Amino acid sequence: MPKLVYSFGDGQAEGTLADRPRLGGKGAGLHEMTRLGVPVPPGFTISAEVCQHFEQQGRLPAELQPQVEEALELLGRRMGRRFGDPQAPLLVSVRSGAAVSMPGMMDTVLNLGLCDAALAGLAALGGGRRFALDAYRRLIAMFGNVVKGVAHERFERALAEARARAGARTDAELDEQALAALVETYQTIYREAVGEPFPQDPHAQLWEAIRAVLRSWNNERARTYRRLHRIEGLLGTAVNVQAMVFGNTGPHSATGVCFTRNPATGEDVLYGEYLPNAQGEDVVAGLRTPEPIARLQQQMPDRYRELLELKALLERHFRDMQDIEFTIEDGRLYVLQTRAGKRTGPAALRIATEMVEQGLLSPREAVRRVEPAHLEQLLFPTLEPAAARRAREQGRLLARGLNAAPGVAVGTVVFEPEEAEAAAAHGARVILVRPETSPEDIGGMAAAQGILTSTGGITSHAAVVARGMGKPCVAGCSAIEIDLERQCFRAGAHTVHKGEVVSIDGSTGEVYLGALPTSQSELVRVLLERELEPEQAPLYQRFARFMEWVDQARRLRVRANADTPEDARVALAFGAEGIGLCRTEHMFFEPERIPLMRAMILAETEAEQRAALARVEPHQRDDFVAIFTAMGERPVTIRLLDPPLHEFLPKEPEQQQALAQELGLDPERVRAKVQQLQEFNPMLGHRGCRLGITHPEIYAMQVRAIVEAALEVAARGLRVRPEIMVPLVGSAAELALVRSRIEAIIAQRRAALREQGIEPPVEFAIGTMIELPRACLLAEEIAQHADFFSFGTNDLTQCTWGLSRDDGQSFLPRYQEEGLLPVDPFQVLDRPGVGALMRLAVEGGRRARAELHLGICGEHGGEPASVAFCHELGLDYVSCSPYRIPIARLAAAQAALAGEPQLRAE
Amino acid sequence: MPKLVYSFGDGQAEGTLADRPRLGGKGAGLHEMTRLGVPVPPGFTISAEVCQHFEQQGRLPAELQPQVEEALELLGRRMGRRFGDPQAPLLVSVRSGAAVSMPGMMDTVLNLGLCDAALAGLAALGGGRRFALDAYRRLIAMFGNVVKGVAHERFERALAEARARAGARTDAELDEQALAALVETYQTIYREAVGEPFPQDPHAQLWEAIRAVLRSWNNERARTYRRLHRIEGLLGTAVNVQAMVFGNTGPHSATGVCFTRNPATGEDVLYGEYLPNAQGEDVVAGLRTPEPIARLQQQMPDRYRELLELKALLERHFRDMQDIEFTIEDGRLYVLQTRAGKRTGPAALRIATEMVEQGLLSPREAVRRVEPAHLEQLLFPTLEPAAARRAREQGRLLARGLNAAPGVAVGTVVFEPEEAEAAAAHGARVILVRPETSPEDIGGMAAAQGILTSTGGITSHAAVVARGMGKPCVAGCSAIEIDLERQCFRAGAHTVHKGEVVSIDGSTGEVYLGALPTSQSELVRVLLERELEPEQAPLYQRFARFMEWVDQARRLRVRANADTPEDARVALAFGAEGIGLCRTEHMFFEPERIPLMRAMILAETEAEQRAALARVEPHQRDDFVAIFTAMGERPVTIRLLDPPLHEFLPKEPEQQQALAQELGLDPERVRAKVQQLQEFNPMLGHRGCRLGITHPEIYAMQVRAIVEAALEVAARGLRVRPEIMVPLVGSAAELALVRSRIEAIIAQRRAALREQGIEPPVEFAIGTMIELPRACLLAEEIAQHADFFSFGTNDLTQCTWGLSRDDGQSFLPRYQEEGLLPVDPFQVLDRPGVGALMRLAVEGGRRARAELHLGICGEHGGEPASVAFCHELGLDYVSCSPYRIPIARLAAAQAALAGEPQLRAE
Repeated sequence: MPKLVYSFGDGQAEGTLADRPRLGGKGAGLHEMTRLGVPVPPGFTISAEVCQHFEQQGRLPAELQPQVEEALELLGRRMGRRFGDPQAPLLVSVRSGAAVSMPGMMDTVLNLGLCDAALAGLAALGGGRRFALDAYRRLIAMFGNVVKGVAHERFERALAEARARAGARTDAELDEQALAALVETYQTIYREAVGEPFPQDPHAQLWEAIRAVLRSWNNERARTYRRLHRIEGLLGTAVNVQAMVFGNTGPHSATGVCFTRNPATGEDVLYGEYLPNAQGEDVVAGLRTPEPIARLQQQMPDRYRELLELKALLERHFRDMQDIEFTIEDGRLYVLQTRAGKRTGPAALRIATEMVEQGLLSPREAVRRVEPAHLEQLLFPTLEPAAARRAREQGRLLARGLNAAPGVAVGTVVFEPEEAEAAAAHGARVILVRPETSPEDIGGMAAAQGILTSTGGITSHAAVVARGMGKPCVAGCSAIEIDLERQCFRAGAHTVHKGEVVSIDGSTGEVYLGALPTSQSELVRVLLERELEPEQAPLYQRFARFMEWVDQARRLRVRANADTPEDARVALAFGAEGIGLCRTEHMFFEPERIPLMRAMILAETEAEQRAALARVEPHQRDDFVAIFTAMGERPVTIRLLDPPLHEFLPKEPEQQQALAQELGLDPERVRAKVQQLQEFNPMLGHRGCRLGITHPEIYAMQVRAIVEAALEVAARGLRVRPEIMVPLVGSAAELALVRSRIEAIIAQRRAALREQGIEPPVEFAIGTMIELPRACLLAEEIAQHADFFSFGTNDLTQCTWGLSRDDGQSFLPRYQEEGLLPVDPFQVLDRPGVGALMRLAVEGGRRARAELHLGICGEHGGEPASVAFCHELGLDYVSCSPYRIPIARLAAAQAALAGEPQLRAE
Repeated sequence: MPKLVYSFGDGQAEGTLADRPRLGGKGAGLHEMTRLGVPVPPGFTISAEVCQHFEQQGRLPAELQPQVEEALELLGRRMGRRFGDPQAPLLVSVRSGAAVSMPGMMDTVLNLGLCDAALAGLAALGGGRRFALDAYRRLIAMFGNVVKGVAHERFERALAEARARAGARTDAELDEQALAALVETYQTIYREAVGEPFPQDPHAQLWEAIRAVLRSWNNERARTYRRLHRIEGLLGTAVNVQAMVFGNTGPHSATGVCFTRNPATGEDVLYGEYLPNAQGEDVVAGLRTPEPIARLQQQMPDRYRELLELKALLERHFRDMQDIEFTIEDGRLYVLQTRAGKRTGPAALRIATEMVEQGLLSPREAVRRVEPAHLEQLLFPTLEPAAARRAREQGRLLARGLNAAPGVAVGTVVFEPEEAEAAAAHGARVILVRPETSPEDIGGMAAAQGILTSTGGITSHAAVVARGMGKPCVAGCSAIEIDLERQCFRAGAHTVHKGEVVSIDGSTGEVYLGALPTSQSELVRVLLERELEPEQAPLYQRFARFMEWVDQARRLRVRANADTPEDARVALAFGAEGIGLCRTEHMFFEPERIPLMRAMILAETEAEQRAALARVEPHQRDDFVAIFTAMGERPVTIRLLDPPLHEFLPKEPEQQQALAQELGLDPERVRAKVQQLQEFNPMLGHRGCRLGITHPEIYAMQVRAIVEAALEVAARGLRVRPEIMVPLVGSAAELALVRSRIEAIIAQRRAALREQGIEPPVEFAIGTMIELPRACLLAEEIAQHADFFSFGTNDLTQCTWGLSRDDGQSFLPRYQEEGLLPVDPFQVLDRPGVGALMRLAVEGGRRARAELHLGICGEHGGEPASVAFCHELGLDYVSCSPYRIPIARLAAAQAALAGEPQLRAE
């Protein structure tokens, strides 16, 4: 006779973790915990083979009933009760559980085994009659709903009426009499809906519940779930039958939750709370104030010691801090559930490093215990959760936008970048609120504490720049309506005027009225200023030690997107191994340079144009000298000019007028030029290498500045590693042409130095951004002219989806509602679409040139799931904004470790 | 001893066409013609193996010299002269010729074998001393330049001085004395430049020339040419040495060119001209008026008969009309060259059909003899070439833009669409000149003879709509500057005001001042009006017959892009087998409908919106009823609304004001809505199925209209084949959602009819446009919800290249200059980029659903090279604008026949 039922309890279990295919995930876990010595309530598991049989034959296998009866016997003995015995009734729960977790597939039925006749027996076991009635009415409702499909609302309505009749605020205030009446009402509801009375035979209850669980395997919801998650090849679901335990049966009972370490600080102490003589839901309801777990040491010292032992056992076994639900029934401790505990960033860091010190974890395992989101908490300011909740309750949550750049900022509202600069100069903290931002606004953005925009997505200008600056940003907040004329914005019923204070949380996308208390990132201050304050020392030391392990584990290099010498300094502080993207256009937007750039664009003759460019050139060269000097022998990838020229000219007629006056030009000429440069779809227009090809003098100036700066710094003895990157290449011919022009300039500058007897040992790499679908498709041809590829996944995502990052907000929220877009492809790299193109590009590129260097410099370079994909793809490095570097380092390490088994010692 | 030299002459040849790898294309052709009995001047070919040896060893193989000497002997015997004999000198030419044609790789040396001592002998052979001196000075200059690298200009300068001294207008006017002096001057130039005198030994001349040809195989120019054209694996070049013949040696000599049929009309008569006692270049110089070829019949009846025999021989052999160059030397006819003759469209059609009647061609071969461009000439009006040349000489060519829609139009300039309509209503012919057009301008475009825009590319709105209407369009003409305020445009020095007449040629992109004479397409008139006029009957009959052969040969089906019942009628006249793209938005732009559409967009409540849509619905249904009725049982693919909503609202404040008044709305509300809908990159914005998903009521209205129309027409007994197409799908989830909504409506309408006892047998196909790179990458998933794919290659090209069709004109001309973009990817489908994505989509789609129906409805569907690609890809049909249907049918047939051998009988 095949074995279909597996018992567990009292330290013994017939199954192990390896029986997961038959016992399901939940079942196998219960057996394993039992073997481990964790006091879980005993029970048994019906193999998933039964489900398969049931599905194929439409009935249960004949062997099942005797085996279940036998297991029930054993269970009764273990609990000192008996299933179906009205004097000492054994109550059980019935739960589904397949080999792969399918949350929400099937509800649970609790308290099975209770009936009219057993009420008194249950009451006598310690809980009293009120407790027994309460358990009974729950059984009727759950059984009716889950097994018989009676609408949940019918029971809820009766319960609400009972409360109203009794004048009770909560269910807990219903007295014995009220509950007795409610049990009768529930039975009536059941009878009317089902057409027969609630079954009084506990065995009948049990078998109906088992059948219901087995049926649920093939209900619509479960089938859809499996199809969507591509779950195939399973036998079916196992069924777990487990003894009920109660923490409300008297003074020696209790219920509680505890963490094996402090989840807020990571300190190595039991942390939690409990309620004597209570059920789990009483803790949740919050009507009685729970006791801190330390009190248990006085009240039930043996149980407390048992908990401490469990902590050691579980941490050693699961190699992680645990979150335990426990119940003490008449002096006996039961663990109902244990799982890895949620924790704050500082706690995660402390727990991981201390567990290594305590020999519980290897450094490589420790790297997997800290989530990227934990590091984010350490690196960006956060809102105090209690204060945020209070503000929400007070109706001060104005709107929700996109969480475009993490961190929290508080300040007075201004709408004009110039005003932001002026206010900041006077020491004021401001939030810059704009419909969207453009490169001209950079000064104002730098001066503001944070940025709030009403349009634009996660890769809009505001978002990208804010992330680069490490400033919080809420973008695409379409719920606010900005009125620049009246200098205010509306959000629902509120109107917020210039000068009012708001708080924005760029980690959640929330905007609050008024100043909310925040906690600043001390770690960042320490990292950037390199002066240890005593109280920060432990945090910093832990961070430094942890990041050492991280760096040992990863294969991917991590570079920074850094446009200025100051950015480079910050990037180094966060551990950048080079610059993966230096956007030269940002250099042009500095106040003393933009007039020169504009003069160049507006020049009518080539001579005028050259003269304007000649005046820009020394500035560019100085920038590069400073960046090369700062980065030393690390690689620095510099992208030649990318944005369309119209981005450098003012849009408003008045500004154009002013510019004309400034440059001594006919205003009509400025207006005409702006109009001439206007584009219908600037994203798909005259930019990138297209600009370099039609305006060779611009690229020539930039390349001269790069080459001269590199040679100058190299002449001082530093082996600099400049990499010149050509943007928006779509064909091999484009890159070949631009490359030949670059090489000519390099050769010429080298020759000029050689005449002076100087030959600095610099190697210039020349490569391209891969940011057009066509570049991916023709990667093999393009690679013949490229030393490196750097994926520009922002533009690649836009083109692959045909979706402008600036225009998506009008329909993407609706897409999220309809479940059409589980994640924003601008936030998390779209593997099946964009990722497939990247794979083609990697394969094509390496086919042409095995040593081709590969990286990514799009915004995805700092997002953990995307970093993992880059690791799998075999890229050489990722590049991201400086503040995200530690996160990218961690993600890279975790990707490298992903193949290693999780629960074994190394 | 290996054979390295192959002789030909007097009907005998040592090589055949199959020896092409060793004898080169030109050499093998000479041998083949000789074998065929064509009287080509005799000669011999040096195998390309010699070139390989020369390249590898740096010297000629020892066996070569005796073989060349022997071949020279034979050649002399054949010509009755002797190479190197001063009394009866044999002159030869030396030419390169590899197995693959490499035009311009190497110049030719003529008249080799002439020297001071042989002048008298040559003169005595019939041409006289002037003739001999002229031949000699040519030899010195060619040999000096080609073999010794003396600058061509040095000889040219001496020649110009000689003309000046003699007061001669042309070289032909130089007398014997002047030529003798010139020969001396040339020899001096040669000696000074080369450092030695011009070689007097004919054999030395010959060997130096042969070496120069062999060296040229590896010169810079030739290597680059081979690299660019990916020519690999050749042995090298062969060398052809051929006897010179002269048509200017006396009264029994002549030179001429003739076509074997009339290249203008196709009539089956010899057509050409000749000059007695002259050289080929005298015909070109145009100083003497040549005689028509018919005169030869009187002057040299035997030679004329010989030409007629040659015509028969060549047409039978090459199965095509030939263009022959011939020389008669002292009564002996030599053919110097024969090749397929260029011809007009009507001639091509007549020749192809008559050659089938004459048994010279099979119908399948005839299909390959007519080029798509020939049909274009038959279908669109053309400029008279002479008139166009005259206009250019008179400086009336104003500008060149893109040849966006073929045909020629003449009319007075207007700048406002409304004016175009008003003028046309009074019978005036106008050309609509706009910076660009938008859907609101359709009325004006329909009223105009042709359209001229200053921005936008080959797939801009103006271009697409014009092609659809069969109207000429010159687009993206950035050389004109439109001043709408002053109602004029500037083009160079010209300013053209409203009311002035211009002519535009949409086949070449040219814009002329004034009215140029044009020839209208009689064929189109006959096809559309179906009334045969006697003189058009032969043309129409030939066309009809030819297209029958075309249709038998092709596999691809050809459908039309047709938006209205009128379009459908035109499409059918041109042979459409269905509608591949019915763009429903064009239906909304009709004057009585656009206010309803605008009211819908501006509606504030859902009720208002539904009310507005309800008023549009009957119009849509009526359109569909008419289209289904017109198309009968042919498939009709209807695309649901695609453009962003802002395209339906006016852009200018005054128009917005007027709209507000019309609809009784607050002007502020209209302004705000326009602003709210504004997009940075509309191409990548809120359009296509994104619009359908956020505004389900719009798609629901359209689907109801389609379904009800189809059911209504089907109830009348017509088995209509509606195909509902969802645009801009990027994920399977999008299509699944929209499909389920469409299916619900179909089911509901069917059920409603069933209740009335009506069950029309209509099958609704539901499919999607594949126009985003992501859709190609995820085709397998998407196909699970699609009955068909239709490639929208306009948008697919835009996204793949990251290139807006409307913004490319600012840099694409420069790209063409730099050779970066051999063809416009919006005109000819980009195989390695866009084509690669299409291939992925075809493979993925068919993997999911073997019976998936595949088509293309982008503008490429009517372009021959792109149609060929669609055939190779295995698509089921192409769809193009109605006027291009015959061209697409021909291209499809030629693609199907491309694998068949060209020169064999079937």
